[in-house]
Formats: sequence, structure tokens, C-alpha cells
Amino acid sequence: MFSFANDYSEGAHPEILKKLTETNTLQTPGYGEDCFTASAGDRIREACSCPDADVYFLAGGTQTNAVILSVMLRPYEGVLCASTGHIAVHEAGAVEYTGHKVLPLPSEQGKVDAAVLENWLRSFFDDPTYTHMVIPGMVYLSQPTELGTLYSWKELQAIHTVCQAYRLRLYVDGARLITALSSPDNDVSLHHLCEVCDAFYIGGTKAGTFFGEAVVFPSHGEPEHFATMVKQHGAMMAKGRILGIQFDTLFTGDLYRRIGKHTIETAFRLRAIFHDHGIPFSCETSTNQQFVILNTRQAQVLEQSFRFERWEVLDDDRSVYRFVTSWATTEESLKALDSALEGLV
Amino acid sequence: MFSFANDYSEGAHPEILKKLTETNTLQTPGYGEDCFTASAGDRIREACSCPDADVYFLAGGTQTNAVILSVMLRPYEGVLCASTGHIAVHEAGAVEYTGHKVLPLPSEQGKVDAAVLENWLRSFFDDPTYTHMVIPGMVYLSQPTELGTLYSWKELQAIHTVCQAYRLRLYVDGARLITALSSPDNDVSLHHLCEVCDAFYIGGTKAGTFFGEAVVFPSHGEPEHFATMVKQHGAMMAKGRILGIQFDTLFTGDLYRRIGKHTIETAFRLRAIFHDHGIPFSCETSTNQQFVILNTRQAQVLEQSFRFERWEVLDDDRSVYRFVTSWATTEESLKALDSALEGLV
Amino acid sequence: MFSFANDYSEGAHPEILKKLTETNTLQTPGYGEDCFTASAGDRIREACSCPDADVYFLAGGTQTNAVILSVMLRPYEGVLCASTGHIAVHEAGAVEYTGHKVLPLPSEQGKVDAAVLENWLRSFFDDPTYTHMVIPGMVYLSQPTELGTLYSWKELQAIHTVCQAYRLRLYVDGARLITALSSPDNDVSLHHLCEVCDAFYIGGTKAGTFFGEAVVFPSHGEPEHFATMVKQHGAMMAKGRILGIQFDTLFTGDLYRRIGKHTIETAFRLRAIFHDHGIPFSCETSTNQQFVILNTRQAQVLEQSFRFERWEVLDDDRSVYRFVTSWATTEESLKALDSALEGLV
Amino acid sequence: MFSFANDYSEGAHPEILKKLTETNTLQTPGYGEDCFTASAGDRIREACSCPDADVYFLAGGTQTNAVILSVMLRPYEGVLCASTGHIAVHEAGAVEYTGHKVLPLPSEQGKVDAAVLENWLRSFFDDPTYTHMVIPGMVYLSQPTELGTLYSWKELQAIHTVCQAYRLRLYVDGARLITALSSPDNDVSLHHLCEVCDAFYIGGTKAGTFFGEAVVFPSHGEPEHFATMVKQHGAMMAKGRILGIQFDTLFTGDLYRRIGKHTIETAFRLRAIFHDHGIPFSCETSTNQQFVILNTRQAQVLEQSFRFERWEVLDDDRSVYRFVTSWATTEESLKALDSALEGLV
Repeated sequence: MFSFANDYSEGAHPEILKKLTETNTLQTPGYGEDCFTASAGDRIREACSCPDADVYFLAGGTQTNAVILSVMLRPYEGVLCASTGHIAVHEAGAVEYTGHKVLPLPSEQGKVDAAVLENWLRSFFDDPTYTHMVIPGMVYLSQPTELGTLYSWKELQAIHTVCQAYRLRLYVDGARLITALSSPDNDVSLHHLCEVCDAFYIGGTKAGTFFGEAVVFPSHGEPEHFATMVKQHGAMMAKGRILGIQFDTLFTGDLYRRIGKHTIETAFRLRAIFHDHGIPFSCETSTNQQFVILNTRQAQVLEQSFRFERWEVLDDDRSVYRFVTSWATTEESLKALDSALEGLV
Repeated sequence: MFSFANDYSEGAHPEILKKLTETNTLQTPGYGEDCFTASAGDRIREACSCPDADVYFLAGGTQTNAVILSVMLRPYEGVLCASTGHIAVHEAGAVEYTGHKVLPLPSEQGKVDAAVLENWLRSFFDDPTYTHMVIPGMVYLSQPTELGTLYSWKELQAIHTVCQAYRLRLYVDGARLITALSSPDNDVSLHHLCEVCDAFYIGGTKAGTFFGEAVVFPSHGEPEHFATMVKQHGAMMAKGRILGIQFDTLFTGDLYRRIGKHTIETAFRLRAIFHDHGIPFSCETSTNQQFVILNTRQAQVLEQSFRFERWEVLDDDRSVYRFVTSWATTEESLKALDSALEGLV
Repeated sequence: MFSFANDYSEGAHPEILKKLTETNTLQTPGYGEDCFTASAGDRIREACSCPDADVYFLAGGTQTNAVILSVMLRPYEGVLCASTGHIAVHEAGAVEYTGHKVLPLPSEQGKVDAAVLENWLRSFFDDPTYTHMVIPGMVYLSQPTELGTLYSWKELQAIHTVCQAYRLRLYVDGARLITALSSPDNDVSLHHLCEVCDAFYIGGTKAGTFFGEAVVFPSHGEPEHFATMVKQHGAMMAKGRILGIQFDTLFTGDLYRRIGKHTIETAFRLRAIFHDHGIPFSCETSTNQQFVILNTRQAQVLEQSFRFERWEVLDDDRSVYRFVTSWATTEESLKALDSALEGLV
Repeated sequence: MFSFANDYSEGAHPEILKKLTETNTLQTPGYGEDCFTASAGDRIREACSCPDADVYFLAGGTQTNAVILSVMLRPYEGVLCASTGHIAVHEAGAVEYTGHKVLPLPSEQGKVDAAVLENWLRSFFDDPTYTHMVIPGMVYLSQPTELGTLYSWKELQAIHTVCQAYRLRLYVDGARLITALSSPDNDVSLHHLCEVCDAFYIGGTKAGTFFGEAVVFPSHGEPEHFATMVKQHGAMMAKGRILGIQFDTLFTGDLYRRIGKHTIETAFRLRAIFHDHGIPFSCETSTNQQFVILNTRQAQVLEQSFRFERWEVLDDDRSVYRFVTSWATTEESLKALDSALEGLV
């Protein structure tokens, strides 16, 4: 049985595990005040070409979104996002739990469009009753999106311009940022994100760490008493070094680039395999998630040897299924998929 | 430099690390629905002799306290605890952030006394204005306490009786439960906790895991839709198996017992060393935290070779300092301390 | 200048004011434990033919919605409503502030449709990832809706049936319930609401009181420690009798019926006047809100003598405007409107 | 039966009721955007000799405290107050419900002492673990206190100096401010409060209005989007004019002064009556609350003709009882008390 169900089916990249082993008995201070965490921050500042960034490490994506949004929004503000945005759908109301409304925008292919955003904002502030409504305070984007699509640098700039005009903060959820950065279709660098974002995070969990997300506040933008608020949200780790060591390793040498490269190469192989066998796509992406349309018989046969997720029911016979690659995707699993499709179509 | 600063200065116990390495490339479902997590739950049920318990794994102690308390308290309820309780002092208001008041009780040596509790409750409900006050809904205890002291089984039963009389839930924070269970002065077993608690947690972070706490709800007491609420609090891990593997290993064979034994033995060695050199104690415990009184000169000399925390200023010259042992405390470090004290007193 | 801007432009109905004056120097206990509040509860139980109802009085509509929803929803639950529902739009995120997500359903003419609701629920629970989503726990309806439309008894029953099937609570916001109850097109009584709702409120502010809303929990459904939670939300009045006296008067004799009758009769007069002058309607209702379409010139002329709200911009020249009647609407104002339209069209 | 139970046993002062009656049919905009509310703000600015103040009207005291504190505290901050402070005891956790910890200080006679405050703050920030604790952000005082005692101008200045040194905001709960301002022992004016406070409120409910509290933000200190946050807390009234009319009347001519004078004069009469009959005081104040010590027999006899509250049990026979006067206290009731005590002692 091979899994294409997601990019968090295994443990950690061997080089990260090796480093955790090597450093295991060293004694360090707790709560992220250790040398590894400091070094990881330095390496990320360097990767971003952003020497003034504040960098912080949290354990998971939902946690990171909830902490950052609740900390950066004023009490009367909500957060705008694509209707398919993770915070709007699959975080069990974690943002609302902190008292803030999620304001979903109509979206296509998972993306917020600058013009749609601007129209929404213009209508909102034209409405004389807007003071009785939740004031938009931030735009949340995912790069890549939940559907695997990418914002171009031009699109991001357009959104940023709207944010500036309406004094909104801009935040990018980078749970799978590694696959955007490695995609041949991508033209948005970490440095670009530093230029337009008030905060963003570089995902670790889906990039080969056991867990962990690196929050970047460009230009010393870390909110006052941020560490206390992280603790208040139950998001501070006693052995904070475990986050530090993992990210320090990820951003040492070319590991991050290699993991991204492998993830994308296997994704493109996967995409080609489906193409070769005439399987239609509902969303063909240049990142590590591929959305294909299978009929019941095809799905049932594949499910005997592979794990993958049903994404959406199309009709009585056909559904959209998601296939995902990662740093751990093997040549063997791709070959097996190719063979399985051979006899199937 | 040796650290006695806390019990989370190193990584994970080598056997846990080994297991993480061995299982690293196995593919499992996410979010704690893997076989390791299931097995870890089984082992903990067995260790508790409590086949009906629901067991859940979360990442850290403050997170666990905030999730459990907010989930088990009704909206109008607060939680009673010792004035020195972790939730009352060092969690940055994590419980209040969920909307609930912490109600500190006068306490001695870090412990809630059943009679003090009962008096407080009787006075509270005698006050005709109590409906304008936060209604007590739960008692929070730490075993061992924040000062390293222990509740006896008799004391726990007495508190439980009061809780029953006033319909309060009882919750035990077991961040360092391993050191209570291994202490020669302890007479409270995991099974005892299952008998009197509505929930408690078995700490992993301070017992040799990288991180992680195992929440036990005896008698299928897991709150409805608990997983969704864990997600809502940002406390669910994508690679939940990492928690499962660590606890599965911790409760396999006699590892948990061995770790506890080493921690306590080194603590008693430490205690004896201070005794031998005539260093006075502010709180001499039978768990892994020892609180000694040093003058400025003594502290300065020791700080050249050891890390440890100042706990409380006593006067211009003397302060209380905390020394902590763990699974990772070495013979070498204890000998070094012995030598350092030799020339000092 | 006459105002058709809303139904809260004046003070209180003279009979209510008279009663407040007559009772002014009587001394009563505070916090709603007075005889007037008790009597008001009795009268409402009688009006509802529901002797087992618990009745409670709060100050305003948004407050009432926020208190009731937060108190009746479990922590992991959200509330379903029409996309135009007051809680989804014009309450500044008051429900989200209590930690709960508002889940808007596609709606027509301001109404939730039972079939749409059921489809939504079926899809929701069919989605295997639903445990990562906000669980629907309640349906919120407004009777009449924010667009002045009415649910029929048959429609309410159909929604109730779906709620039962999915174990959702049903709550009706009756800010303008008086105009529903008085409408010739209405077939839903207070008793009907008691049969299908877990809670609903009878609006006072828009029915001739200075302020105040009467919450009804049929069948002793008041949540435990409700008074304490009302206090916790800052929604308890020291001089609670002011609420009691107003509602006691409103439900004495036929005052409530007379106020409703006047409100609806003037609304139908208003509607006829627009009709007579050929003004088109965007939403022609049988309650006290009428939505007409005016061009810029018409609006400007009317604005010289009348106050009314622009509801929605249709195109460069035309907009929807809302005209509202109340207990205080005068014959004089209607005649003036008739005359003004005379020369206008 | 006469009531000395509290200062909210009757309706509104007749002049306020008269004004509500006179203005009843005037049509005004809703939500506090009417001329009366504007005028009331002007009069309060004048009474405070503070032309730059922002003034806002809310319905009740707990509501006002919860809104203001949650709006002025940053997410990581708590509020310091006397251990007997209303927010710490009798508001059912309304402040904690907004996510903020109340930090009670040891207090005497209901008052926060500047030196105690400063010591607390110095110790707090000396503790290296303070970043894991709730950061103090504000000091809450009540003038007069819950025990009827008064802060002198010198005491307030001393507290203000500490607040400045530690960058804390200062807030005064003026639920009974009228009795402080009218007391012969008082030397703190409204203008003084404007000089030292970031916000304070002037109580209406206990000063002769049906309900309502006037929040003052000196020097245009109103938080951004304050109205939206008031709405978000369910604290905005549709007929906001009712608040405006009441406060406009209260601060027209010398009504506020006259009400205060009557309240204090009757309080001093009450005090003298108890003195004359040799009844001991537990707290003898120069405001409108007097705390006397009665034995069981005395209390039982008085309870036949008077309503008053038991405040604290002293021993098997004796308790502290609170007697309160107000604008509505009659000569007749005082004479009756005098007579009743005659035969009693």
C-alpha cells in the first residue's frame, strides 16, 4: 500500500532526524531561548534576504493562524480570505474561537482576486451601516492555495496595493510554501513575501520536519509581548529547541531546496502518469497536489493499492480525488501507480 | 557547564528517539488516527488498570490545561486551585483567555487542603449574592505540586469527597507525574487517579519525550466532539503519530519506570549532597525538584559551573534556588556539584 | 420632517410611559426579582398558552442574540442562518466575539428554506473531514425576516423537522415579531413558536417599549445558571423592574394587539400610497417594512420632508429604499407622503 | 416597609421622567446619533471642564466595565484592582469572559494603595519569569469604593504616578461617583479624574436615571472604532436617545448636584441615627453606604419594617449590615428607622 493521501504521512526527513539525534544530549535553555532556535532564525532571515525580520517558531498550522490572526487583528476586525481558505473551512472555527469573524470572498481556483477584493471593500465602506458590521482588518492568502494554485508576483502586488489603500494587513499561510518556491511556474520568492506581507509562515510539517512552522514578521514587525501571547495560546514549547534544530537543519546547505525539488519532481511525474493514461483533471497544478477525476470503478481499483482522498463528489459515478507528493514520495510508488493505471483505463 | 535548571534541557530519551528513527518512513494516517497512537492509548489504559478510559495526546502542558479546562467547564464556571498552581501563575492567562476565571485558594507547600476547600465552598454558597459571582465548577491539582510536594491518597480522597458533595469536577495536572509515581513517599497510583478524577494528564515533556502530554478521561469521559475542539484550539498535530510513537515507547516494557527511577535517584543524591554540605532547604521534597537557600557568594560560585533557577528572594543576601533532575541527569554532574560545594561552604 | 426611517425613532408607547410614571416611587428588589417582572412573565406565558415557559428580559436585540446563542451552543458548534440574517451581517460580529462561527445559508427573500437546510446538513455530515469543521448546532431564523417576509407555519414545521433529524436547536429572533403576529398573511402564533423553538424572543424595542426583549424558553428550557451568564455578559439591569413594568404593560389588556394593528394598518396604507403613485417595489411585504425603488430625483425630493433609509444601490439612477411604520406612525405623516408623491411621479 | 437595601430600588428621578415624557414623540435617529445624546455629551464635557473629552453612554455598570476594559487592554494584559473591587467579585467573571485576567491587590477599606501597587509591580517585573505571566496593563479603582470609602486627590495622584512609571492605564468605576462628589470629605473633582484617568464613568443608575452610565475618555481618548465594539458587545441601544435624554437632564441646571446633596444628607442622617442609638459601625463612611453591626435580635426586629442587606457574618450573633440612601430616600423612612431603633437598643 502506497500513500498519496497527503504530505504528512511519514516522520521527518532523515537529515533532520540525524541532527535531532546528534544534538540530543546537549543541554539548552527552554522556551526557544536556545542557540539552535537563534541560528534557525538567522538562516531564515538570510533565506529571505531580510535581515530585519523577526522569526518565531510554532508547532502547527492551525495554531499559527489562530495565534497570528488574533494577535494582529484589533478586537473589531475580521479577516478576509478566499471562500476555500483553510481558516474558513477546515480549522474547526479556530479563528472565531479567538473572537474574530472570517469574511470569505468569492474565489476561483482557490485564489483571492485583487479586483474582487477591491470591489468588496469599496461596497463595504460605501454602506452607511458599516459601523454595525465587522470591519475588515487583514487579508489571508495561502501560497500555494488549498487547491494547489499559485499567486504570481504581479497578483500579490495587486492585492498588496489594495491592502495599502484600505489599511489592511496582509498575511500569507505558507503551509506548503516549499512547493510554491520549487515550482517552475512560480515567480514569488521569500524576499517578495517580505516586501508585501505583515506576516507569513514557512511551513515545516509539510516540508520534512516532524512538525513546526516558522513565522516571519518582516521589518521587526513582531507584535509587542508576542512570546507571552504565544504562551497564552498554549503554543509555546518547553523544549523549543526541537523546533529550532529542525528549522536550522532545513535551512542549512541546500536541504530545503532539495526537499522542494523532490516534491515537485514527483508531483510532475504523478501528473504526467495521469495524463498518459487519459485521466481528466479537475485542477491541474504546478505544485504538489493534483486533483483528478475518477469514476467509481477506477477509484475502487486504485484504493486497493493506494491511499488518497476523495475531494468532491461530481455526480453519481465520478468524484474528484486528490493525490499529493512529498519529500518521502518514492520512485517505487509512482511506478506502482503507473502500472495500476495501465490496466485500468 | 551542567544544568540543573529544569527537566526539559535535553532532547528525548534515547529509546524514544530510536523508535522515532525506526518508524520514520512508515506511512500512516494523520491527526492521531494511526496505529501507534492507538497502541499508546492501549498501553496507558493498561498502566492505569482502567480499560474504559479515553486517552488523548496533546503537545504541551499549558495547551492541555487550557483545552481541558475550557472544554469541561460550563460557561459560567471557574476553576479552583492552589494559589501557587501553574494555571494561576505561569500560564500567561491561558485559562482566562478561554473565558474562565481561575479561583486561587490559600495553600501551603503548594497543596489544596480539603478542609480549606470545603470552607471556601460553604461560604461561597452561603453568600446570597453568589449568583453574581463565578460559580466554582472544577478543582485543579498538580501532582506533584509546583513545589515538588505530594498529595497522599487520603488527601486526594478527601478532596474528591468535597468535589462530589459540591458537584465539582476534579482534574489533576500531571506534568511531572512520573516523579510522583516513582517517589518512595508516594501512595497514589495511576489507577487511584482514575478513581477520583474526571480527567488528568500524564506528562511526557518532563518524562523523556520531545514533547507531549497524555490526557486520560476515565470511564469513557471524553467530552463530545473532543477532537473538533482540540482542532479549534490549534492543538491537533498533523503528524499525530509523533505523539503516539513517543508514548507508545514510554509505556512499553519498563521504560517509564526506569526513567522515573533514575530521576528520583538522582534527585535524592542531589538532596543528600546539599545536606552533606549543610546547605539549608526551603522545601525539601521527595520528587525531582529541590529548593535550597544559598547566599550571594555561594550562588555566584555555583553559577560558574551550573545552571539553576532563582526561585525567590529571601533577603539582601539569601535567595531560594531550585535544582531539578531528570532522566538525563548524569553521575558526572552530581559529582561536579559535590566538589563545587566542598570548597564553598 | 416625518421619519419612516425605522420603528425606533420615538420613545415609548404612552401607556407604557404612564405605567412607568405611576410605579416610579414604589420600592422593589433589583435585578429582575420584582413583582412586575414576575407578572410580565406570567402574562407572556399566558399569551403563549405555554404555562411551562421560562421567560427572561434583556435590554436589546444584539445582546439577546449573543447571550442566547453563546449559552445554548456547545463550544464546538456554530449557528446556521439566512445569508441576510441579522447575526450574519449587522451585529458587528457579536456572535463570533463569543467564539462561535455564524454559518450563512443561501437564502431567498430573507428566508431559510428547509430543503436547502437539509441538503447543506447532508453534505456537511457526508464530508469525512467534517470533524475539522465547525459543527452546526442551531438554526437561527428571524420572524419576520430582515426583509419583512414571513415564515408560514408549514415552513416552520418543515425546518423544525430537519432540526430534529440533525439534533439542532431552533431559535427565532422576534425583534419585529409583533408585526408578524399582526399581519393578515401570518399563520404562526406565539404558541406555535413554543412548539417548535428551543428559544425565541418577543421584541419590545420595536413594539413600543423604550427598550427590552422578552426571551422565552418553552418547557422550562432555561439553561442552568442563566442569570449568572446574563450578568457575565453585562446584560443584567440593576433596575430590572423597568423591563418588567414595560412588558407587563405591553401584555396587559389588548395593548400589544393594538400596537401591532396600528403598525400594520399604517404599513398597508403606506404600501397602498406607493402603489397608487406607481412606485415599484423591490420587496412588497405584509409586515411593517416596505422596500420601494426610487430614482435619484424622487429620492431627493422626498428627502426634503421625510427620513428613510437607502437599502441597496440598483444602478446609477435607482436604489431600493426602506420605509418603516410603527406604533407612532401618524395619519399626518402618511397624508404628507401621499401629497409629496402626488406631484412627484 | 421602607428599603435601605440599595440605591436602585425606585424608578427615575421625577425631573428625568418628566423630560422623557415631554420628548416622547419627537423623532430622532437611532443608536445615539440624536441631539439629546450630543447635548448630554456637551454638558458632561462642561461639568468636567474638559472640552476635549469623548463621552459615550452605555446601559449598565458591569457592561461598561467589561466593554472598556476589554477594549483598552491589549490581549496579553490583565487589570489590577483592590481585592474587594467589583470586577474581582460581583460581576460573574464578565472581565474574564473577554479573555483578561483580573489581578487583585491586597487592599484595606476597599482601596488600592500606591505603595502596595508599586511594590507589586516592582516584584512582578523583577521576576525573570514574568513573560510567562499576565502582564498588568491597567489599574481599576472605584470612587467611592465598594465599601463607601474615598480616594483623596493626593492618593489618586500617587497612584497615577505609579501608573505612568509602569505605563499602565488608569480607569475609575464611578457607579456611585455622585456620592463621592457630594461628600464633604471629598477633594476629587470630575476635572481631577480627567487629569489622571485614561477613562472613567459617571454612574447614572445609582444617581437617579432608570439606567445608564456615561463613559468619559479625556483628551479624545476614545478607542478607534469604539461604536463598533460597543455593538459587538451587545451594548448599543437602538433608542440611544433614552440614555441621552436622561443624562442631558441630569446635567442640566443643578439636578445632579441636588440629587447628590439629598443622597449624602440622608446618608449622614442615617449615620447619625445609628450613632445616637449606639449601634457600632464596621465601616463608617462619608458617602451613601453605611455598614453597621447588628445582633440577631436587632436585625430581626428591623427586618420587619425595613429592607437592607447582610454584608458579612462576624460571629454566631453579630453580622455587618449595609444601609444605603439615594435620591429617593424619604424623611419618613428615616424617622421610622429612628423610632424602630428607639425601642430596640
